[in-house]
Amino acid sequence: MSGAGAVSDKIMADLVGNLLVAQSGGPTAVINASVAGVIQEAGKHECIEEIYGGLNGILGILNEELIDINDEKARTIEGLKYTPAAALGTCRYKINFAKKPEQAARDMDRLFEVFKAHNIRYFFYAGGNDSQDTAQKIHEESIKRNFEVRVIGVPKTIDNDLPHTDHCPGFGSVAKYNAATVMEVAADVSSMATDDGACCIIEVMGRGTGWIAASSVLAKRAPSDAPHIILVPEIPFNEEVFLARVKATVAELKYCIVVVGEGLKKVDGTEYSADSSRLDAFGHPVLSGAADRLAELVQGKLNTKTRTIKLGYAQRCAAHYASLVDMQEAVACGEAAVRAALEGKSGFMVKIVRTSAPGAPYRWKTDLHDLKEIANLENMIPRDWLSADGLMPNEKFVQYARPLIEGEVKVPTEGGLPKYVTLEKSRVEKTLPPR
Amino acid sequence: MSGAGAVSDKIMADLVGNLLVAQSGGPTAVINASVAGVIQEAGKHECIEEIYGGLNGILGILNEELIDINDEKARTIEGLKYTPAAALGTCRYKINFAKKPEQAARDMDRLFEVFKAHNIRYFFYAGGNDSQDTAQKIHEESIKRNFEVRVIGVPKTIDNDLPHTDHCPGFGSVAKYNAATVMEVAADVSSMATDDGACCIIEVMGRGTGWIAASSVLAKRAPSDAPHIILVPEIPFNEEVFLARVKATVAELKYCIVVVGEGLKKVDGTEYSADSSRLDAFGHPVLSGAADRLAELVQGKLNTKTRTIKLGYAQRCAAHYASLVDMQEAVACGEAAVRAALEGKSGFMVKIVRTSAPGAPYRWKTDLHDLKEIANLENMIPRDWLSADGLMPNEKFVQYARPLIEGEVKVPTEGGLPKYVTLEKSRVEKTLPPR
Repeated sequence: MSGAGAVSDKIMADLVGNLLVAQSGGPTAVINASVAGVIQEAGKHECIEEIYGGLNGILGILNEELIDINDEKARTIEGLKYTPAAALGTCRYKINFAKKPEQAARDMDRLFEVFKAHNIRYFFYAGGNDSQDTAQKIHEESIKRNFEVRVIGVPKTIDNDLPHTDHCPGFGSVAKYNAATVMEVAADVSSMATDDGACCIIEVMGRGTGWIAASSVLAKRAPSDAPHIILVPEIPFNEEVFLARVKATVAELKYCIVVVGEGLKKVDGTEYSADSSRLDAFGHPVLSGAADRLAELVQGKLNTKTRTIKLGYAQRCAAHYASLVDMQEAVACGEAAVRAALEGKSGFMVKIVRTSAPGAPYRWKTDLHDLKEIANLENMIPRDWLSADGLMPNEKFVQYARPLIEGEVKVPTEGGLPKYVTLEKSRVEKTLPPR
Repeated sequence: MSGAGAVSDKIMADLVGNLLVAQSGGPTAVINASVAGVIQEAGKHECIEEIYGGLNGILGILNEELIDINDEKARTIEGLKYTPAAALGTCRYKINFAKKPEQAARDMDRLFEVFKAHNIRYFFYAGGNDSQDTAQKIHEESIKRNFEVRVIGVPKTIDNDLPHTDHCPGFGSVAKYNAATVMEVAADVSSMATDDGACCIIEVMGRGTGWIAASSVLAKRAPSDAPHIILVPEIPFNEEVFLARVKATVAELKYCIVVVGEGLKKVDGTEYSADSSRLDAFGHPVLSGAADRLAELVQGKLNTKTRTIKLGYAQRCAAHYASLVDMQEAVACGEAAVRAALEGKSGFMVKIVRTSAPGAPYRWKTDLHDLKEIANLENMIPRDWLSADGLMPNEKFVQYARPLIEGEVKVPTEGGLPKYVTLEKSRVEKTLPPR
């Protein structure tokens, strides 16, 4: 057993044992739907004995913080499909062999102690780049240590920056919520627009890539509709081009709606929002984001009244307006992960493959991709999916993103508000000494 | 004809003529629903001949910018009930006799020229404090000028600060959207919470009153649920009390969700967010809001990682999650305005009267209130609806606000996004020289 292939051959036979599922990184509106998919699929197969959830990702697993999913009501598991955020808890902890090799080795020893103590033979980790890297490392260690555990990564990230998958569960829902918000804010701002003109700048998430910002283009049903400018990190910010476009838009429509990705970059590659020159009362840099800085620019140079909106976490957990397609794909990714492991696969991430041609009715399927080719890679928007001036995604982007926001998830309500579920979290008894 | 009473007596007879409806001030998720109520009720009565809409409030009317509502499709008028923002356009223009008497006199002359030119005999103005003041002035002028036009104000403001009405159309929807957002953000932040602790501060609207901030208390289903602290302008900000509560909450729950009204005040009565000491590159004060300033405070004094959310305009136009009760009341206020005018009333605002006791199933009706007692008054949260430390609304507030967010408005969708309506805006021919 010296490589992934060897393991794959060996584990074609039925592997009997327990399953562990955990969540990692920033939550999304549908990461729980993936966990529901794992749990419901696992429940169909006898060789999977116990189904455990790891609390707060790998960090909780290292502390032997496991819960017994079979103690949860079936209704609760079904409810995970419309419940936002990470029901199992999440973490940003990374087993980092490159930077902290000794700590990483200790962590890996401990992790396999936990796996052995609870006979974990199936491990599913829902997360983004870092989490897939962790999954890959665990897969490699299982081979080295000759302890068979089948490891499959489940893709998750609102940022949509994982490579090799057509898109990531979580992205469609944030795209849908943000586009609806842009549409509504535009109705508001335009109805107040007078000859003085008005500008509104909406800051959205996405870190180093502009997928989320760009997807707000879906709010456009006519060329003059908002958003009028979309600033993405892939295109270095050009102040002159930006201000000229704001000015022209206000002159034409009396208002201008700008969407900016939080990770917008200057030409020198540094973040546009970073501003170490202004310190607060405690000597820390002032907490102004990209939108606030752009607003200062527009007000200062164009004297146009400018308001900002920073949706922040609100956008990534807005399950009250999640995409049905996104939710269904998230469930399917969880199910596919379990089926792959049962077929003997390990060291793969589930990916979404688009099987329809651009413009044709949307069709997709799940497939697997080697984790070695996923970890720590960042998928950017292709340059030819953006307009020549870089201020607006073009039809190629729209055809890509449009199907991902289709349909609404039905969320039960109580007292006029969403009725989300919470897990009982019945703890699995610890058998190891504390970490 | 020297007073409102005299006019009321006279106009009990059928008054035949045209109707003009307009919108004013900040838009809401349901101000169009009130316009739909006016239009649909007016369509039932033969003495109302033409139904006109005034574009951009009083400002557009002064410019004789009227549209013919009877050219709109019935489906569009019905669609106004779920379409956010001001479909007719709005303005912040005020006919200000106190500060600009000469301009105000000229405006009033012009307004009545427009009314006479188009035989406007019914005028409905949907808006907040300033707009009700304008409506009152127009009513008084109609008596002075011996030109009979029946003027009824339709209440509208997300801020919920109009006096004499139990609450204002627009408030329930922003309360519902914000409470759902707080619930979702809390799920997100709590699922990431580690021993390091995390704080998230959500800034909401409401200007000088805390109704909107306070209504986020509806997100609480258990005492430990978010929001954990609500800062309202009615209670001067106390840094020590606030920081102690953040610290205690993070110690207990590992996270703390704070909601702050944009108009939070210092003990000296000035706005907490105002910060003239920090200037941007153009010499203007840095655009930091209340949430960003509080975040600096928490990070600086408690060293707790803190994120901010500024919902801004997004909260007041979020028709995709509007309150059904709010929408129905907004429609009813528009209908009631028309019926009042047809009964000979003028110089009144429609108000909402709660007819159920606290805790009993919610019941309400519309009534009228003299405009003289509405204008320019600001209704604050009663002190005894807030906890002793001022950091949380109590059960009295909850019983008041809870019914107002009940039910969901069905919004049709297209391509996964709301399908809101827009008016054709067929212009009524101008007959006057330009203003």
